[in-house]
Amino acid sequence: MATIYCTATSLDGYIADDGESLSWLFATPGHDTDPQGRYGDGESLDFDQFLPTVGALVCGASTYAWVHRELTADGQDFVWPYEQPSWVVTHRDLDLPDGVRAFAGDVRDLHAVMTEAAAGKDLWVVGGGDLAGQFADVGLLDKVWVHLNPVTLGAGKPLLPRRLRLHRERIERDGQFTAMLFDVVGPEPRRDGDVDGAAEVYAEGGP
Amino acid sequence: MATIYCTATSLDGYIADDGESLSWLFATPGHDTDPQGRYGDGESLDFDQFLPTVGALVCGASTYAWVHRELTADGQDFVWPYEQPSWVVTHRDLDLPDGVRAFAGDVRDLHAVMTEAAAGKDLWVVGGGDLAGQFADVGLLDKVWVHLNPVTLGAGKPLLPRRLRLHRERIERDGQFTAMLFDVVGPEPRRDGDVDGAAEVYAEGGP
Repeated sequence: MATIYCTATSLDGYIADDGESLSWLFATPGHDTDPQGRYGDGESLDFDQFLPTVGALVCGASTYAWVHRELTADGQDFVWPYEQPSWVVTHRDLDLPDGVRAFAGDVRDLHAVMTEAAAGKDLWVVGGGDLAGQFADVGLLDKVWVHLNPVTLGAGKPLLPRRLRLHRERIERDGQFTAMLFDVVGPEPRRDGDVDGAAEVYAEGGP
Repeated sequence: MATIYCTATSLDGYIADDGESLSWLFATPGHDTDPQGRYGDGESLDFDQFLPTVGALVCGASTYAWVHRELTADGQDFVWPYEQPSWVVTHRDLDLPDGVRAFAGDVRDLHAVMTEAAAGKDLWVVGGGDLAGQFADVGLLDKVWVHLNPVTLGAGKPLLPRRLRLHRERIERDGQFTAMLFDVVGPEPRRDGDVDGAAEVYAEGGP
């Protein structure tokens, strides 16, 4: 059982642009349309294979609002798109659909409740970045799984506004997406001695 | 002859942290120390093989100041670490070493001068991100080549503060670095119709 932040991101680390749009994501060709197809160094990092491994999921209030807005834009009734037990971290009094519960408080308590609901399956942190960061702050974020888009946005919602060291476990080229699965190692220290690091790097020919 | 922005970046799109340090970069194990070694889908994306293809290079004032500070921190005389004709984009009156010239003005003029100096070789935009963006603004940035580190910083100097569509040409796993070479396609439009994109994605099981 792992807690996994799985999201798409721009090359410069935004999960939504400054207009809260994902149009840049939907414009990226995947393996089904891109001539490069799919290639990886291990098990597939396809989202479709991830979703069945998820036992419970959580998103922040902004992410929930985005899903709600997108799925009701043509006047439809809102139906939550996931079957798994779901939580929204919010202090607002939202009119939530079946299967979605509100949570406000310490994410350690939320993690315990989600773990019980997931019955041995993984927990998915859908976003946004600060919510994933809150789990990381208390040592409860195990993995970061990104589908990196070949686009820069320059501004928007940050991927993961924390200082963290990761360890890349797997990589997959999925059309123009680059899927990467990382383990979360922990806080990235502010080291002394990078002066020596720089001198050494330049002695070897450059950074 | 191509104009290439080649740099290291954090996963969340910073080329230096908020203390202007690169200690997080020097802490990432490359192919020589990481058990994953090196694996790619084409020619190597090793920096050592890039540097000899460079005929002229340019950096912004902050990048120049960083190099100067790092290479004189132990009291040494400052020696510019590159053999190629080099420019610093700055309005300040800097005391520059041999081989480095100051430039202020339209980057199209700079590009012409650099192209002549490079004598058929590539131009390297060392950084920072805004300088690379200035070349992109006038259609003179051909490629973006990143060595992505498995670290998030949460704040710092942005990789490329522009809205641009890229096309990934090559990828290489170099220890814990993920090296990616992109062609610059052009400005990424703000599209209508991502509502339909979202609905379609959710109909297929999720983003």
